Amino acid sequence: MAKQEDQFKKVLSHAKEYGYVFQSSEIYDGLSAVYDYAQNGVELKKNIRDYWWKAMVQMHENIVGIDAAILMHPTTWKASGHVDAFNDPLIDNKDSKKRYRADVLVEDFREKINQKIQKDVAKAQKRFGDAFNEEEFRATNQNVIRRQKQIDEISAELTRVQEESDLVGFKQLIVDLGIGCPASGSKNWTEVKQFNLMFGTQIGASAENSTQVYLRPETAQGIFVNFLNVQKTGRMKIPFGIAQTGKAFRNEIVARQFIFRMREFEQMEMQFFVKPGTQKEWYENWKGSRLKWHLSLGMGEENYRFHDHDKLAHYADAAADIEFNFPFGFKELEGIHSRTDFDLKAHEEFSGKKLQYFDHTENKSYVPYVVETSIGLDRMFLAVFSNSLQEEALDNGTTRTVLKLPAVLAPYKAAIFPLVKKDGLPEVARKIMDDLKWDFNVFYDEKDAVGKRYRRQDAAGTPFCITVDHDSLEDNSVTIRHRDTMEQKRVAISELKEIIKAEVDVKTWLQKIDS
Amino acid sequence: MAKQEDQFKKVLSHAKEYGYVFQSSEIYDGLSAVYDYAQNGVELKKNIRDYWWKAMVQMHENIVGIDAAILMHPTTWKASGHVDAFNDPLIDNKDSKKRYRADVLVEDFREKINQKIQKDVAKAQKRFGDAFNEEEFRATNQNVIRRQKQIDEISAELTRVQEESDLVGFKQLIVDLGIGCPASGSKNWTEVKQFNLMFGTQIGASAENSTQVYLRPETAQGIFVNFLNVQKTGRMKIPFGIAQTGKAFRNEIVARQFIFRMREFEQMEMQFFVKPGTQKEWYENWKGSRLKWHLSLGMGEENYRFHDHDKLAHYADAAADIEFNFPFGFKELEGIHSRTDFDLKAHEEFSGKKLQYFDHTENKSYVPYVVETSIGLDRMFLAVFSNSLQEEALDNGTTRTVLKLPAVLAPYKAAIFPLVKKDGLPEVARKIMDDLKWDFNVFYDEKDAVGKRYRRQDAAGTPFCITVDHDSLEDNSVTIRHRDTMEQKRVAISELKEIIKAEVDVKTWLQKIDS
Repeated sequence: MAKQEDQFKKVLSHAKEYGYVFQSSEIYDGLSAVYDYAQNGVELKKNIRDYWWKAMVQMHENIVGIDAAILMHPTTWKASGHVDAFNDPLIDNKDSKKRYRADVLVEDFREKINQKIQKDVAKAQKRFGDAFNEEEFRATNQNVIRRQKQIDEISAELTRVQEESDLVGFKQLIVDLGIGCPASGSKNWTEVKQFNLMFGTQIGASAENSTQVYLRPETAQGIFVNFLNVQKTGRMKIPFGIAQTGKAFRNEIVARQFIFRMREFEQMEMQFFVKPGTQKEWYENWKGSRLKWHLSLGMGEENYRFHDHDKLAHYADAAADIEFNFPFGFKELEGIHSRTDFDLKAHEEFSGKKLQYFDHTENKSYVPYVVETSIGLDRMFLAVFSNSLQEEALDNGTTRTVLKLPAVLAPYKAAIFPLVKKDGLPEVARKIMDDLKWDFNVFYDEKDAVGKRYRRQDAAGTPFCITVDHDSLEDNSVTIRHRDTMEQKRVAISELKEIIKAEVDVKTWLQKIDS
Repeated sequence: MAKQEDQFKKVLSHAKEYGYVFQSSEIYDGLSAVYDYAQNGVELKKNIRDYWWKAMVQMHENIVGIDAAILMHPTTWKASGHVDAFNDPLIDNKDSKKRYRADVLVEDFREKINQKIQKDVAKAQKRFGDAFNEEEFRATNQNVIRRQKQIDEISAELTRVQEESDLVGFKQLIVDLGIGCPASGSKNWTEVKQFNLMFGTQIGASAENSTQVYLRPETAQGIFVNFLNVQKTGRMKIPFGIAQTGKAFRNEIVARQFIFRMREFEQMEMQFFVKPGTQKEWYENWKGSRLKWHLSLGMGEENYRFHDHDKLAHYADAAADIEFNFPFGFKELEGIHSRTDFDLKAHEEFSGKKLQYFDHTENKSYVPYVVETSIGLDRMFLAVFSNSLQEEALDNGTTRTVLKLPAVLAPYKAAIFPLVKKDGLPEVARKIMDDLKWDFNVFYDEKDAVGKRYRRQDAAGTPFCITVDHDSLEDNSVTIRHRDTMEQKRVAISELKEIIKAEVDVKTWLQKIDS
């Protein structure tokens, strides 16, 4: 755990130091759970977004995109269920005036008991050494048995009050467990209240003309309300998909883990409209192809796993997460959900408009079923960034920090160095740069020794460094160094474009998805 | 004027019919002054954004990007002046309960007088025919003189009350002119009040822990608050720029003209940080290069003009618009502003942090001056779309509707048709598509006669159509048709990629900027 926390701290400080992620409004001491993407971060984020868009839209004849606004008609969120049910249970401490998520208070309490068990187990392990059998110990040690029973009882009651929205029972559970305010220890609690996670705002000027609207808490509804317009004007035939990337907002009470859970975040979603009855097949299909997309980036098959949901949301008949091995463990990176016809039917009901598709092969109209793939762009950014950040022991006994980003996603594809800042070398270097920049994002650096410049580009994630030396003036060749292997090769200037292209070209990487 | 309105109506209906722009949440009868980009619109918008980003960031060694969040620390907007001064003067009618912008009421009243003058002039012109001299008529006709004097008096007083924020005088002006409520005619007005145009929302859960924040009304401040972090981690040397694209929000009271003025819109801004004293030079420089960027798209030099501002905002020492000839006349498309050190100094004051640059060549620290280029992405979309939409008379007496988008911006670069839906032609067409789609966004269509398919692609803006016929099976060649010339050529399938690339490649178009 300590090692994980260390690695996560390194991710945070590296992200700031190398211009990937800054705290939002840092000069004003930040805005909680909101972050800004800096000069390298914006390019990495853009490249991830483009890689997804190309794979989903450009490569699929039957998937098109849209870009719906963040502000939508408020009835949208009545229909989707967000106005009534997109809530967190909150409780205030009357003495400290602090507010908490009731479920988090209970979960933290339960976790403490669990940690006591772990401690007992660890102690016994130390005492008995090789003779220790954990299973047997857990089954016979009275302390452990008692604590495990308590954990099970808490879990059962927590599930019950959540499922039944029993707010009185929720409060009672906290009182019964004797949970105190983490800040003050006081047990003087208010009732538990439901708090809606949508950000609200007023559109229009006067009290009478103004309308309460919301910042969308998910992008999916922008696709559903446009479904029929896209289908008709695009003459789409089922099965077909609509893809979208864009911001969504949730007023999270407990927002933590850097850019993993933010109040303002970006989604990349695709809603695939299918014939009722075929959704299971398409659901399996999309589970497979989405995993392939992730694997194409070469970040290690062992870092992904599926988590099939047992408990389903009210709109779903099947759901799974693709989990990634983040610095804080396996967590959801992408969701694939078989959403049935819940959303379209709800919008039919609330709008009074038919949202049906006429199927010429079946000669009848129906409300399509929907299979959704939904990925958090910021989470994807964190997955790529944290997985790429590595400390490498070198042969000479030193270590280097290298950001081994998949080359297709790297902000700059190459950095160009004149060996020295004189003798006409900068001019040649800039000429190479002026030629390459039409095709790639390239970086110029002439400060410090070349070794130091290499290290900077390693840490920034640039796949190639190109050094112009005095020989270059004679033979029109340069040294090209590869970030990952640190291998250096002498190549003709005229070959550079093809060498770089071979490793960074989107096309090359996209082809790995299908292979 | 009627012709302009007609053209504008055509733009609106074409934008919907061909999947470019839909009204937001249309199934719920829309959300006022908010629009969604549909399947073709999202691609056009993306291509414009990319064309700007490549030209500004990738092509300039000293410009980098960022992507700051929409939600920022609220003190940002105190420092920028938006909390105190980003207002519209509003007035309510007590009888009709309708709310209006006070300045718009006065302007509309003044415009009515102006229309009376126009009517008198038109009448006289009709009466006198060739003998009519408008200048002389305006100088001598008593009605016209009286009305012109009234217009001048209204304008002078309107300017005064606005500049002095004289809200009592503003109300008096409306009363003195006898302006009635446009809906009810009632002259029973409230006082004039200032209404802030920022959308507010609450972040955090409880009354005590929650903070009033705003949806950013401009993207520029996200650049200013990050200025020092970017400069330091990016080791930038002045002069350098920071570019950003992203959403901004303004609670406009009078929002109209389709996507020209929306409540939610997207900006593409670049703030260029320069040494104090050099700002005028850089201002002229950026005026020139931004116009070149527009002209590179080939939409007609005559459709652009500069409008230099006489009246400057409090933060500016020079400002100009690049105006474009929209269907409703010449209007602002982009602004170039010399913003002085106003913003950085204000953030220094409100944050208590130094926002200075140490200039090694001058050996001293200073707060840089800023030259800004700011373009509305949605306005740019409207400029491109409306300018490209044309009705062409054909030799055979019919007309065709063609959307002559600059090829680099077109959503689909080519459409691929099998001449008939049998004999193995669809298979060949799909094979071509599967080959081209790695490089371009391509469209497949096998429905209706080829002539009809050509027309559809003309109207959708696709630069090339490729038809596979029975000969293709023998000679591996196809017919390629050019959208603008309607010229058809027989070419080898193997040549297609190069032919298309030559016309749509971003590189080719970017090179026009510097030539």
